[in-house]
Amino acid sequence: VDGDFTELRQRLAEISDLGRARALLAWDERTMMPRGGAEARADQLATLARLRHERLASDELASLLDALRPRAERLPYDSDEASLVRVAQRDSDKARRVPAELRAEITRTASVAEHAWVEARRSSDFSLFAPHLERNVELKRRYAECFEPFDHPYDPLLDDFEPEAKTAAVRPVLEELRRGLVPLIDAVRESGHEVDDSPLRGSFPIARQRELVGEVIAGLPLPADTWRLDETVHPFATAIATDDVRLTTRYDEAYLGTALWGAMHEAGHALYETGIDSGLRRTPLCRAPSLGFHESQSRLWENWVGRSRGFIEHLRPRLATAFPDELANATAEQIYRAANRVEPSLIRVEADEVTYNLHIVLRFELELQIFDRTLALEDLPEAWSEHMREYLGVDVPDDARGVLQDVHWAAGSFGYFPTYALGNLIAAQIWDSASAALDDLDAMVGRGELGPLREWLREHLHRHGGKFTPAEMLERLVGGLSVDPCLRHLERRVRDVYDLGASAQIVR
Amino acid sequence: VDGDFTELRQRLAEISDLGRARALLAWDERTMMPRGGAEARADQLATLARLRHERLASDELASLLDALRPRAERLPYDSDEASLVRVAQRDSDKARRVPAELRAEITRTASVAEHAWVEARRSSDFSLFAPHLERNVELKRRYAECFEPFDHPYDPLLDDFEPEAKTAAVRPVLEELRRGLVPLIDAVRESGHEVDDSPLRGSFPIARQRELVGEVIAGLPLPADTWRLDETVHPFATAIATDDVRLTTRYDEAYLGTALWGAMHEAGHALYETGIDSGLRRTPLCRAPSLGFHESQSRLWENWVGRSRGFIEHLRPRLATAFPDELANATAEQIYRAANRVEPSLIRVEADEVTYNLHIVLRFELELQIFDRTLALEDLPEAWSEHMREYLGVDVPDDARGVLQDVHWAAGSFGYFPTYALGNLIAAQIWDSASAALDDLDAMVGRGELGPLREWLREHLHRHGGKFTPAEMLERLVGGLSVDPCLRHLERRVRDVYDLGASAQIVR
Repeated sequence: VDGDFTELRQRLAEISDLGRARALLAWDERTMMPRGGAEARADQLATLARLRHERLASDELASLLDALRPRAERLPYDSDEASLVRVAQRDSDKARRVPAELRAEITRTASVAEHAWVEARRSSDFSLFAPHLERNVELKRRYAECFEPFDHPYDPLLDDFEPEAKTAAVRPVLEELRRGLVPLIDAVRESGHEVDDSPLRGSFPIARQRELVGEVIAGLPLPADTWRLDETVHPFATAIATDDVRLTTRYDEAYLGTALWGAMHEAGHALYETGIDSGLRRTPLCRAPSLGFHESQSRLWENWVGRSRGFIEHLRPRLATAFPDELANATAEQIYRAANRVEPSLIRVEADEVTYNLHIVLRFELELQIFDRTLALEDLPEAWSEHMREYLGVDVPDDARGVLQDVHWAAGSFGYFPTYALGNLIAAQIWDSASAALDDLDAMVGRGELGPLREWLREHLHRHGGKFTPAEMLERLVGGLSVDPCLRHLERRVRDVYDLGASAQIVR
Repeated sequence: VDGDFTELRQRLAEISDLGRARALLAWDERTMMPRGGAEARADQLATLARLRHERLASDELASLLDALRPRAERLPYDSDEASLVRVAQRDSDKARRVPAELRAEITRTASVAEHAWVEARRSSDFSLFAPHLERNVELKRRYAECFEPFDHPYDPLLDDFEPEAKTAAVRPVLEELRRGLVPLIDAVRESGHEVDDSPLRGSFPIARQRELVGEVIAGLPLPADTWRLDETVHPFATAIATDDVRLTTRYDEAYLGTALWGAMHEAGHALYETGIDSGLRRTPLCRAPSLGFHESQSRLWENWVGRSRGFIEHLRPRLATAFPDELANATAEQIYRAANRVEPSLIRVEADEVTYNLHIVLRFELELQIFDRTLALEDLPEAWSEHMREYLGVDVPDDARGVLQDVHWAAGSFGYFPTYALGNLIAAQIWDSASAALDDLDAMVGRGELGPLREWLREHLHRHGGKFTPAEMLERLVGGLSVDPCLRHLERRVRDVYDLGASAQIVR
């Protein structure tokens, strides 16, 4: 049986290597590749994905797992071996449920849909994209059917990003979040206060932004020589190995916030990856329990650390040196407020910390209606506009700034959006736990002493990789998912930035 | 049978994709990767190499080729299908000859040897490297034995880089080259002339070099959006696809020549790759017939174009603008002479165009003696010193600047070195053919009009990829290998740069 474990590790290592190689090719495509390489790159990515999937869905792996399961079940639940068998079993089962042809068709159709989406967005015409969306949805319904029985056809989609999460459980959570956010946004509107974000707006030469942002990221407690930061159109982070994480950001000459907090967000992902136990390398345990958990770390470093008054006080001298014309006369308080301005707006990726969640709730509700068949795709733009009016009080002027703004549906990624909001909720809960455990966390952040926070996160979360399901990890960390910590965090910040007295009532 | 051809193409496309993905990972390792990624990268590279090799050596591919061969033999020799079957057969046969364990041991041993070599070179102590070299040689002997019968144990090694080349044929060619070069170098020494290379030496800020070199490469007839140029320690070029070639160079602040002609050298490789017929993509035909042929193109663009008087006249205004302090007062003639200074020296990669070939001949002869068992490895440093004294008249002060200077033997690459000299010979022959075919090539080069040269090379060489063996391609292009054109080229340049009258006799 030891020999079987060795063979299991070898098979999983090969699958892991193929996945990591694919990640490098995808990173290169978005950051380095000459445009001429596009066609060949699509072939190369498809080949690596196919070889990886064949191995994951193979009879050999399934039999090996069958042979190992009884032994694994006698080992401690959180031992490497037991976890490996459990998680590999899950991955193998999922891979084997979906016929290869359906998988290939989903990929092909999404690839065509993405091209159509680019065109449709350019001309701001949903009707050009609608037939492609129709096909993506139809294929995803068939994909979901591979996992019958289920309570809701959205469950298998969600499961790809939040293992074992159920629609019935996520729906009331996001509804509670929405209900808590609306009065917060009302309070901002009714406060009559205008927060001035002009300190972050102006002319920030990109070369100097690049230098500053590089310095800020290097100042985070990331191990040396384990990351790099490059430029791309749609920023992301990807781990080629736990000690080789590629961060990307984009620079807006007119607004410093895009690159600065964007890069801190991606660095949060890198702090997660570099914190995973080295013993889990080249296994399916070498990842976060879910996208929501991964996002919790990017949000925590972007918002709880990066946009805090203390960290901004700590940053201010460097900001003033980098951009004396724009920032030498701005106080830390002014920059802090500018960084936390709340303003309902049209575009998710530009949204502030408070309204961002409503962009997510909107997408989640529309996805549910699509897969419930209670919303016809042709009515999607109208439904989008209605939700935007209701939740954020803004009018959607066109499809490009409405239903066509995100690539996710074009790429066939349904069930992905809610993980962004779940990440915010989890971040708040984790922050509260870390605050309780660490002596005066806020003061440490203000001194730029972030090592202890990283160590706490590593010890309690990062190092375990994917040994536990999201629900198990939440239970261990904070005793279960809760909306309240996030709402309290946002309320505190809004009160602070908008000078709402502690007495101003915010109905929830 | 058409279905069989389709299956063959699919199998070969997969093999090609794995190879190209591996090339990207290797490029990234040397140009982009954070150091922390090294261990994981070694695993990822090994997995891709193993999967590729398993496919190439598979029974399925061999049977498919057996089934297709009769049909392919009835097709025109240079048709895509016939060539594909022929070349894939060769690749498959070679892959199947070598047991997987031996292949793995060669890779492992070379990896250890490379680390030992780095240490040995640092402390300039051959004895630290000798046992590793011993093992590399022993494994390569066993590798060669997989290809018995052979005329010479060096033949199978050579064959990996120059398909179907034989030691018995290469030996007299390189001997003829050596015999031709010695009097040329004597003539330089006896001329009493000193060529001043100070125009290229001084202080050339690297940021400006980077800009200049980028401009020069962009001015070559490379298709747009098919290449990029990055920095590395040991420069190379690698094709991720025919339309995605990665060039690398290194910059020496004190000597402009390193980056300028180094990058032109790598661009020559890129001109080859981008010229291969698009119909050969994702097949084993999508490559040069041999390393010698590939090197012929890098040398042609580096030396025949790049170091020519005409091209340097064309470059001069840009050089003067980029480095006014260093070059505004240098004439094109001075720069031309500086770029073509002949000076026997210790280090191959820094050698001039004339003496370079003797560095190669030396290595080739030593490799032959090693595999002939006429030279014990412990005597290698002494033999190296003797050859250097005899061929170049220089004394080798230590192992680091002698036998330990190149990585090739540490990496287990025996049979590789001669391709550098063969490349020079082929370049000269091709240049003569192009000169005869194109109307006043020298004048075109002087005007920076390089498109017609590239088109001629593409038409007669590049587009065919690997359809022909090196011998067949030489036959088609120039009627067979000849040493004379290279010697005449070098003699002309030496006479020119060293003001040797046409009457000065250079015995050959």
